[in-house]
Amino acid sequence: MNFPFKTVALIGKYRAPEITGPLLRLADFLSGLNVSVVVDSLTAENLKQHEYGVQALEAMGGKVDLAIVLGGDGTMLNIARTLAPSGIPLVGVNQGRLGFLTDISLDTMQQTMGAMLAGDFVTEQRMLLYTRIVRNDVDVFSSLAFNEVVLHRGNISSMIEFDVHVDGEYLYRQRADGLIVATPTGSTAYALSAGGPILHPSLDLIALVPVCPHTLSNRPIVVKSESLLEILARGITEVRVHFDSHAHFQLQENDKVVISRYPQPVCLLHPVGHSYYRTLREKLLWNVSL
Amino acid sequence: MNFPFKTVALIGKYRAPEITGPLLRLADFLSGLNVSVVVDSLTAENLKQHEYGVQALEAMGGKVDLAIVLGGDGTMLNIARTLAPSGIPLVGVNQGRLGFLTDISLDTMQQTMGAMLAGDFVTEQRMLLYTRIVRNDVDVFSSLAFNEVVLHRGNISSMIEFDVHVDGEYLYRQRADGLIVATPTGSTAYALSAGGPILHPSLDLIALVPVCPHTLSNRPIVVKSESLLEILARGITEVRVHFDSHAHFQLQENDKVVISRYPQPVCLLHPVGHSYYRTLREKLLWNVSL
Amino acid sequence: MNFPFKTVALIGKYRAPEITGPLLRLADFLSGLNVSVVVDSLTAENLKQHEYGVQALEAMGGKVDLAIVLGGDGTMLNIARTLAPSGIPLVGVNQGRLGFLTDISLDTMQQTMGAMLAGDFVTEQRMLLYTRIVRNDVDVFSSLAFNEVVLHRGNISSMIEFDVHVDGEYLYRQRADGLIVATPTGSTAYALSAGGPILHPSLDLIALVPVCPHTLSNRPIVVKSESLLEILARGITEVRVHFDSHAHFQLQENDKVVISRYPQPVCLLHPVGHSYYRTLREKLLWNVSL
Amino acid sequence: MNFPFKTVALIGKYRAPEITGPLLRLADFLSGLNVSVVVDSLTAENLKQHEYGVQALEAMGGKVDLAIVLGGDGTMLNIARTLAPSGIPLVGVNQGRLGFLTDISLDTMQQTMGAMLAGDFVTEQRMLLYTRIVRNDVDVFSSLAFNEVVLHRGNISSMIEFDVHVDGEYLYRQRADGLIVATPTGSTAYALSAGGPILHPSLDLIALVPVCPHTLSNRPIVVKSESLLEILARGITEVRVHFDSHAHFQLQENDKVVISRYPQPVCLLHPVGHSYYRTLREKLLWNVSL
Repeated sequence: MNFPFKTVALIGKYRAPEITGPLLRLADFLSGLNVSVVVDSLTAENLKQHEYGVQALEAMGGKVDLAIVLGGDGTMLNIARTLAPSGIPLVGVNQGRLGFLTDISLDTMQQTMGAMLAGDFVTEQRMLLYTRIVRNDVDVFSSLAFNEVVLHRGNISSMIEFDVHVDGEYLYRQRADGLIVATPTGSTAYALSAGGPILHPSLDLIALVPVCPHTLSNRPIVVKSESLLEILARGITEVRVHFDSHAHFQLQENDKVVISRYPQPVCLLHPVGHSYYRTLREKLLWNVSL
Repeated sequence: MNFPFKTVALIGKYRAPEITGPLLRLADFLSGLNVSVVVDSLTAENLKQHEYGVQALEAMGGKVDLAIVLGGDGTMLNIARTLAPSGIPLVGVNQGRLGFLTDISLDTMQQTMGAMLAGDFVTEQRMLLYTRIVRNDVDVFSSLAFNEVVLHRGNISSMIEFDVHVDGEYLYRQRADGLIVATPTGSTAYALSAGGPILHPSLDLIALVPVCPHTLSNRPIVVKSESLLEILARGITEVRVHFDSHAHFQLQENDKVVISRYPQPVCLLHPVGHSYYRTLREKLLWNVSL
Repeated sequence: MNFPFKTVALIGKYRAPEITGPLLRLADFLSGLNVSVVVDSLTAENLKQHEYGVQALEAMGGKVDLAIVLGGDGTMLNIARTLAPSGIPLVGVNQGRLGFLTDISLDTMQQTMGAMLAGDFVTEQRMLLYTRIVRNDVDVFSSLAFNEVVLHRGNISSMIEFDVHVDGEYLYRQRADGLIVATPTGSTAYALSAGGPILHPSLDLIALVPVCPHTLSNRPIVVKSESLLEILARGITEVRVHFDSHAHFQLQENDKVVISRYPQPVCLLHPVGHSYYRTLREKLLWNVSL
Repeated sequence: MNFPFKTVALIGKYRAPEITGPLLRLADFLSGLNVSVVVDSLTAENLKQHEYGVQALEAMGGKVDLAIVLGGDGTMLNIARTLAPSGIPLVGVNQGRLGFLTDISLDTMQQTMGAMLAGDFVTEQRMLLYTRIVRNDVDVFSSLAFNEVVLHRGNISSMIEFDVHVDGEYLYRQRADGLIVATPTGSTAYALSAGGPILHPSLDLIALVPVCPHTLSNRPIVVKSESLLEILARGITEVRVHFDSHAHFQLQENDKVVISRYPQPVCLLHPVGHSYYRTLREKLLWNVSL
């Protein structure tokens, strides 16, 4: 990571015209601090006249020192996945209620970003998952996931059956609606709805959370992040694999889903005083009395 | 119900040639007791030469006093749904391990059926659900379900959102993978995997069991069987409705799913000594020590 | 039930001096409507000079047509249990946030009670549980419960083991922290925390909800309200039985806990427009978005 | 660790006379391999005449290279906790069904131990928890736990309320039956019954698993093993703290429970071919079909 931040990229929520005003205000503010500002090319399509450089997300590596994302957790998830190979640190500004990944309010973003550019921030490394679909020993698809990889029955009317191996060792054959393979970041997303545990995001871990397992004693398992997971769906079924509810892939018979930690983590920057537990309490309504 | 049973229909598992031998043995046995035997027309396709009358399932009403099903719980589920309008009582013979619905063993079926035909049996009424899909005030689809009706996201990569009304009263708007509307019979099937309660099958009740609900405090609710449930999926999504993992229907925007108890219950006959709790213990492995 | 209500009893939360002002205002209001008002004797101890008759709770049967309880759900629970044998209908007024049982606000109680006394109300019957502890064929203790009966390990450091029979039939032997036997009213209380289903309060049902069962496939079971439950704790352990978190009894070896529905239900009166589902949504924070 | 194993201690299940025969056979076998055998002093009380040295558990440190425990997982748990400060590696031999910690069968122990003493084994480090009860800044009690520390309401008839801080940061105020603070070893014990995740034992992690939490969105949280946990029970209640269902301590008002990882892990030795997942499948009945 290169600190201080000489060049900062601004990225807005996709197709969200309401974000353009705040985004340009932030650009002007950063410019006034002698920071070089570039705007993500997709975001720039929504902007009228402006004076800033435009850069495609995929080409920011090596040219940008920090990416500021304006949107919600969903936007942040997508941008983080795309920027992951570049190693560019990310900051999230939320339009509405603060999220798990976007913990700076639009109302106070200039003040907060000013402090962060001056060095007042904490960094956090978050792991991603890298998935390959292997067919006859050849990779036919691959994808990153920041939250989770989900093997799911999709439109099939009954449970699917699959075998899971961890580091070459047989874990189980299971019948279920599906299986969620989640990062700690994803542990508060879909995996939580399926009964998975909350994993502190500072940890590097992988949670395997079954969705409606037929065997009632089948429970979420947490394994080390260095594990190599291999999942093989059984039978000639149209099992789907989802990545962060973003991309998906339809398996063919004997396709193997191979999941491991992506070598490059995402680096998130938070303002000083950021509290994961506070976000957790607010998101899960723990501080609202019945 | 007409007791004693003068005419008995024999119905075998669909496309299961191994069932034909036992089925004909049972036919001969019943014939020897002066019971008139008819064979289901689909089952008869698998039989070689035989002397028994053949009757389509749908036409058995009024002509048959008892239907004996040879197969597993899945077969029984399908036959029970089809025969439900006729009111014909059902008995289930299982090839393998006893099931929830098929509690007579192939090995002892002659002895057991002999005793049952002589009057040694207990009867049980089981409710079914009747679902109509209403589009612009017109029914565009309808189906019975013995286990459950499931509203599910299917191939959609994110949660679906739907509103539920019970007897015209708003219950909740929910985001989830889906919603299971289960009978007591279905409470030990898919609904159980999703965290629903076990409802004793002698009860007439409807359980609403969310599948992976986004709101963690959303829990299964049990309402009276006379309830009229109306479910409206929100947004332009390809939500699917499944009936006993058997039939399904793809909703269009603004389609309303209307569920109520089917007026005619299924009548199951059990041998004396039948124990629901024993089946439960065996199926859920309660009597296996860790 | 005797309608219209000629004599109305007012009962305040125990040891809650702040309730005396509103209670006397309500008394005056009712008096002005030519209703005869009596005050519960324990409540009266907190009142200064007043003109109303005083009556012990236990002696109200046959003398009082309606009991108005000012307090929270906990107070209502206790009063309902005590008044249950008398059959006196109950209305609940809540000081703070509305509860499941106390659904009239202190702010609007005069207007609401005026309408209800004029006949604008809905009635609801709620079942209670009656428990006997049987030692050597003799009852050594008995108690009513409106929410639940709980068999619990208490101070014992490990799980307890117990056998459950339903109507003389063996259900299971289980090792767990305990077992909750809940009414529909209690289904939104402790049983819900232990993973039990929500049972609509109009239903007469009994839920058996295990607390941290050792066998993971052990799930809540709902049986008919006419069931006779017999629970026998195994081993020489100091198992406790709790009734509505109110009374408790310490079992001795071979003591049998026998639970059945209490023959006399509690009759609750609600204002017109009362909605159980709305209370449920509010209490369980279903209408608060994440 | 000192390999090869010159001196081996044999420790039998407490008050289990049936273990003495196999234990002496194992002693003779080891002796025949020129291994010096000592017998735990408590175990020795059950032995008749024998030729082996006797040593108290607490005094084995520095004198013993390996401890072989004959009993079940419960015995192993107790011995491991007691020997933890010594760093002596442990092996578990099970009389009956293999356990999570005792994975050598009595039937094959000579053959297996012979191979292990020859160097064919795998080692595993397992973390323990160290708990201090702090009253007015003074430690009034301390204990190790291998499975879990449990804060529990015990005989109290209602939920307890407590505040939890992690590394000085406020996590939550919670009302519940209790809170389980579990190691990965303990994740398959009581914590699993309370809905906690399975944590692979090779991981160093702490799981906080609420027992019947009042707030339904309260879920198990996994934090890093270096965390300092501080739990403060609120109100004047007789809250109990249990350690491995072995020791317990009754809290007074304002007592603080401080939990951290014990610096010295337990070293377990397993035969080559040992499989945690296989044990998991067997223990949780995953390989038994419904």
